[in-house]
Amino acid sequence: MRAAVVTAYDQPLEVVDRPVPEPADGEVLVRIQASGLCHTDIHAARGDWPVKPPLPFVPGHEGVGVVERLGGGVTHLAVGDRVAVPWLGYACGRCGYCVSGRETLCESQVNTGYGTDGGHAEYAIARASHVVPVPDGVSSLDAAPLTCAGVTTYKAVKVSGLRPAERAAIFGIGGLGHLALQYARIFGAETIAVDVTEDKLRLADDLGADHLVDAAKTDPVAAIKQLGGADVAVVLAASPTVLEQAHAALRRGGRLVLVSLPKENTMRLPIFETVLGGISVIGSIVGTREDLAEVFRLHSAGRTRVDVQVRKLDEINDAIEDVLAGRVTARVVFQP
Amino acid sequence: MRAAVVTAYDQPLEVVDRPVPEPADGEVLVRIQASGLCHTDIHAARGDWPVKPPLPFVPGHEGVGVVERLGGGVTHLAVGDRVAVPWLGYACGRCGYCVSGRETLCESQVNTGYGTDGGHAEYAIARASHVVPVPDGVSSLDAAPLTCAGVTTYKAVKVSGLRPAERAAIFGIGGLGHLALQYARIFGAETIAVDVTEDKLRLADDLGADHLVDAAKTDPVAAIKQLGGADVAVVLAASPTVLEQAHAALRRGGRLVLVSLPKENTMRLPIFETVLGGISVIGSIVGTREDLAEVFRLHSAGRTRVDVQVRKLDEINDAIEDVLAGRVTARVVFQP
Amino acid sequence: MRAAVVTAYDQPLEVVDRPVPEPADGEVLVRIQASGLCHTDIHAARGDWPVKPPLPFVPGHEGVGVVERLGGGVTHLAVGDRVAVPWLGYACGRCGYCVSGRETLCESQVNTGYGTDGGHAEYAIARASHVVPVPDGVSSLDAAPLTCAGVTTYKAVKVSGLRPAERAAIFGIGGLGHLALQYARIFGAETIAVDVTEDKLRLADDLGADHLVDAAKTDPVAAIKQLGGADVAVVLAASPTVLEQAHAALRRGGRLVLVSLPKENTMRLPIFETVLGGISVIGSIVGTREDLAEVFRLHSAGRTRVDVQVRKLDEINDAIEDVLAGRVTARVVFQP
Amino acid sequence: MRAAVVTAYDQPLEVVDRPVPEPADGEVLVRIQASGLCHTDIHAARGDWPVKPPLPFVPGHEGVGVVERLGGGVTHLAVGDRVAVPWLGYACGRCGYCVSGRETLCESQVNTGYGTDGGHAEYAIARASHVVPVPDGVSSLDAAPLTCAGVTTYKAVKVSGLRPAERAAIFGIGGLGHLALQYARIFGAETIAVDVTEDKLRLADDLGADHLVDAAKTDPVAAIKQLGGADVAVVLAASPTVLEQAHAALRRGGRLVLVSLPKENTMRLPIFETVLGGISVIGSIVGTREDLAEVFRLHSAGRTRVDVQVRKLDEINDAIEDVLAGRVTARVVFQP
Repeated sequence: MRAAVVTAYDQPLEVVDRPVPEPADGEVLVRIQASGLCHTDIHAARGDWPVKPPLPFVPGHEGVGVVERLGGGVTHLAVGDRVAVPWLGYACGRCGYCVSGRETLCESQVNTGYGTDGGHAEYAIARASHVVPVPDGVSSLDAAPLTCAGVTTYKAVKVSGLRPAERAAIFGIGGLGHLALQYARIFGAETIAVDVTEDKLRLADDLGADHLVDAAKTDPVAAIKQLGGADVAVVLAASPTVLEQAHAALRRGGRLVLVSLPKENTMRLPIFETVLGGISVIGSIVGTREDLAEVFRLHSAGRTRVDVQVRKLDEINDAIEDVLAGRVTARVVFQP
Repeated sequence: MRAAVVTAYDQPLEVVDRPVPEPADGEVLVRIQASGLCHTDIHAARGDWPVKPPLPFVPGHEGVGVVERLGGGVTHLAVGDRVAVPWLGYACGRCGYCVSGRETLCESQVNTGYGTDGGHAEYAIARASHVVPVPDGVSSLDAAPLTCAGVTTYKAVKVSGLRPAERAAIFGIGGLGHLALQYARIFGAETIAVDVTEDKLRLADDLGADHLVDAAKTDPVAAIKQLGGADVAVVLAASPTVLEQAHAALRRGGRLVLVSLPKENTMRLPIFETVLGGISVIGSIVGTREDLAEVFRLHSAGRTRVDVQVRKLDEINDAIEDVLAGRVTARVVFQP
Repeated sequence: MRAAVVTAYDQPLEVVDRPVPEPADGEVLVRIQASGLCHTDIHAARGDWPVKPPLPFVPGHEGVGVVERLGGGVTHLAVGDRVAVPWLGYACGRCGYCVSGRETLCESQVNTGYGTDGGHAEYAIARASHVVPVPDGVSSLDAAPLTCAGVTTYKAVKVSGLRPAERAAIFGIGGLGHLALQYARIFGAETIAVDVTEDKLRLADDLGADHLVDAAKTDPVAAIKQLGGADVAVVLAASPTVLEQAHAALRRGGRLVLVSLPKENTMRLPIFETVLGGISVIGSIVGTREDLAEVFRLHSAGRTRVDVQVRKLDEINDAIEDVLAGRVTARVVFQP
Repeated sequence: MRAAVVTAYDQPLEVVDRPVPEPADGEVLVRIQASGLCHTDIHAARGDWPVKPPLPFVPGHEGVGVVERLGGGVTHLAVGDRVAVPWLGYACGRCGYCVSGRETLCESQVNTGYGTDGGHAEYAIARASHVVPVPDGVSSLDAAPLTCAGVTTYKAVKVSGLRPAERAAIFGIGGLGHLALQYARIFGAETIAVDVTEDKLRLADDLGADHLVDAAKTDPVAAIKQLGGADVAVVLAASPTVLEQAHAALRRGGRLVLVSLPKENTMRLPIFETVLGGISVIGSIVGTREDLAEVFRLHSAGRTRVDVQVRKLDEINDAIEDVLAGRVTARVVFQP
């Protein structure tokens, strides 16, 4: 099978031929139909984060495909089922986090395309217990970005406690942001899209944003304050400055959700304003299998739209360059 | 009447004789029996904060006493009722915050002992709608610190979402902290008291803390991590460093509550740890009238103990010096 | 002014001329532009409920109009402001319910068109503190049904804890139900409309219901179970049998919200199914001023549509007959 | 090994010798040290409920003991670990309920001592994933009743949303009720114990109940209303009449939690009172593994006390008679 492999943190990926792997007990072999490219793949491939993935490895945690073979003991899936293979490749199922509905905090979790080989290949191995069925109403192409960009932003909006008739500001309208915007609307909110490029604001407009703020031309804090301030701000831009702007744009009782991971890793949090304003800053990391099932149900019901750009797996290094250069409006998905 | 008056931000308070004020429509005159000294009084008297109180003024927002005269239109109170006059001297009662149970965020609020004269006097004027009745089971001496130190820490624990069998760390065991510790226990938690002085840790021990951490002798982060990490940390110490330690001492899913207002006003928030750990940082400001009523009910039921040191109002400047020098274990209360 | 007056519980209303009333301190005089007819008006006029309204009285708690005169002490409103005068004509603003955001439970509340004269007249007196401003984007005709039918169903959906990707069944698509359906969708749910008449199901279809169940032709419990069961059921039909059906149609973890008040007043609750299914049955009564403000914001943002039938106030007795005979699809609104 | 076996629904249990079973893959063999007798065991043994347990079977779902042998693939447990084997013997770990922290609603669950052999024996087989470790601070004798009576009432209090300074009424102070009372206190509430026998009220008094109501001598509704009404009522008595009393004893905003399963299976729910009072009726069934871990932590921290009466397993039929005759104050625990 073809697979995109990271062999060194300072080298491009190599797209090579490899034997199709065998599923062990409790695993399944998935023939990948679509695999989304997430910024995290790039960080993984470059070893950007403190805990680096062991080399060599296949990145990708938005793989969607068809179950081709079942490992021993797998009875709840059948050959031919269509499934997604998300970032949360395994969680123990027994710790306090897992049992109380917070499996994304499991200390024993294994992450697809980081701790194990992921979806940027013709086939992938996955734990049967942690793949998520894709309903008929969701194409594999759409399912791919939903598997991480979708569930991550859906969860971010969920943990914000956003309620109907509140005002939500989404900072950064790309692969994640264009979905965050739609989820904010699904939660009943009035929405504000903030970005610095016109095509992304046009996409936001197209997706039904109530207000557009071009942060390249106007001060987003002032613009949002003029609308009455935001009850919730979700930040997808990987920049402490944007996080600090988002905090400043909140009204009293507001919640700022942190999703993206800027290299600088430190946000300057103003204490007086946080205390007097009764403001919360909330970290959110991907979502559970049930969150992803909900994301699929919403898409199946026609309530979300995914902006996808299809590429061949062989072009993965070019695609990475395009993402880094800001030449991709929303999400690249590979078809092997 | 005797009253402690701030006449200049760079001068000691003057304790002077003044005519007893008259309650206007909707107000009551309260004969003060006990008035707690809060660190905020010192900030107010020195004009430490961006919005300074207009001079001259009487500080104090932990005043407790007896209704002596009713202004026009006041029918729900009677002369002789014992009431507390808290920081939240007035809120509009009509805005979204007020109507949804978040009156401490009301943009039109007036604060006792800051925007209007407060409790460090023999008499105080208060809005009838915003005083809180003190039940028979609560002495005026105890009621005074409960009126701010109590309700503020009770609310901080409340907004943290602390649940039974979770672990709560209280950083700073003083006027506020010794109450925070008790509330954490009332919410069912295992408690950790963190301080740098022995007498405060002794007080914490006496109040039933499950664990004591002397941050002068051991690294509090390591000590708390060894216990499994904190689900909730409430910080009463006015120091960004302590806030950052408290954040680092959280386990995944943990919540850090900001209450105190350090002069530096900026906390360095680590983004990666906040996101991956699913951590929340929550600002909390005093509490509502209902929160205070609950605080009084808990005290009346024998579930809290207040550590009080009685002083004469004439000694207010000495008392302030004692507080600043760390010579007061918990709370000073004036009896006029 | 013209006013529709109940003079005896067993007689039709009399539409008579009366002097325009004067607002006392804290009150406003509102010139009514639109006044919705609620089933509660009919119960009030007939003295159907245990606590009967004192005779004579003007019913109506969906009155919307323009402030024409201010009583003493009213400063937050101006002549010319457009406001709604809802069922919750007064709440004390000081009890535990009021202060914690639950003013609809206030034991001292006064109800418009029941405990005081209501909106079925050319003018109405209202407490300034308890009218709710109507934003420019909401016509008075639309605002009227939103003032009770809207806020009541919005609140019912709110207390159900309905979340995106859940399934909500609305039993009874009339004045209330056609709004409940829209709110369920605004909360992100997949919706099921249940009714026994075709025109109401057509209205539901038109409003975007995902599924229609004609309970005159099929067993609604079986039909809903086949869809997977409902997470939330909101019942607007005033029938214990329908409540029992709605309970049976829930899936595990489901919530049944009671809104309507059947004459029989008793629902037979199956205990085994409630316990094993982890099911909740939740009573919900109108909504707060803030709930109504949210309802108006949602309408102003174009997210709801109100089905209105305009009548002259003089025709009130005919309109009542039409409602009782089921000849009104959604809501009758009087224009004086 | 000795085991208490149900061979016919209309016959006493037979205590017989049986071979010690072998753990299959994913299972463990537990040598039972203590096994609590729950009323559900009696219903199981008599085939009282719609879905009857297949004959023959060993009842018991409060078994606590030591892991003696590991089935294939079990790595997170070791021989010698002390564990509890609760009612929730298995849940799928993949459905929406399991993944969102509600495994007690899993449609695929298997129940210990009902769908599989339980703890009333010298040995029991259990799924390794679903036993719960017992911490050192909890004796096996205490752990046994906590494993069902404890976790069931803890969960009941949890789902009620009981908050500090609220008032909770516990109806029925026996094996479950004496623990419910303690959990209500741990959640910070003022507590009311209601029972009809003096020794149970004495036990409640001893456990710190704030108020005692002898329902054999006074009307419990009137007595509770005089205290201000209950915010939460948890009913352990298996009687619709008591449920109806508990509902009537609630104040506005109150929550009634259903736990027990009366034979009549129908409660008459008053609709008007439920709607106007904003009351909720909540079904609650046992608790998750994490709930049980919390129950153990609270006991280990010295916050609960278990009232236990030790019997030999051979006396199981006598013990059942004693329970049915009301001769047992709290909980019988067998030691094999």
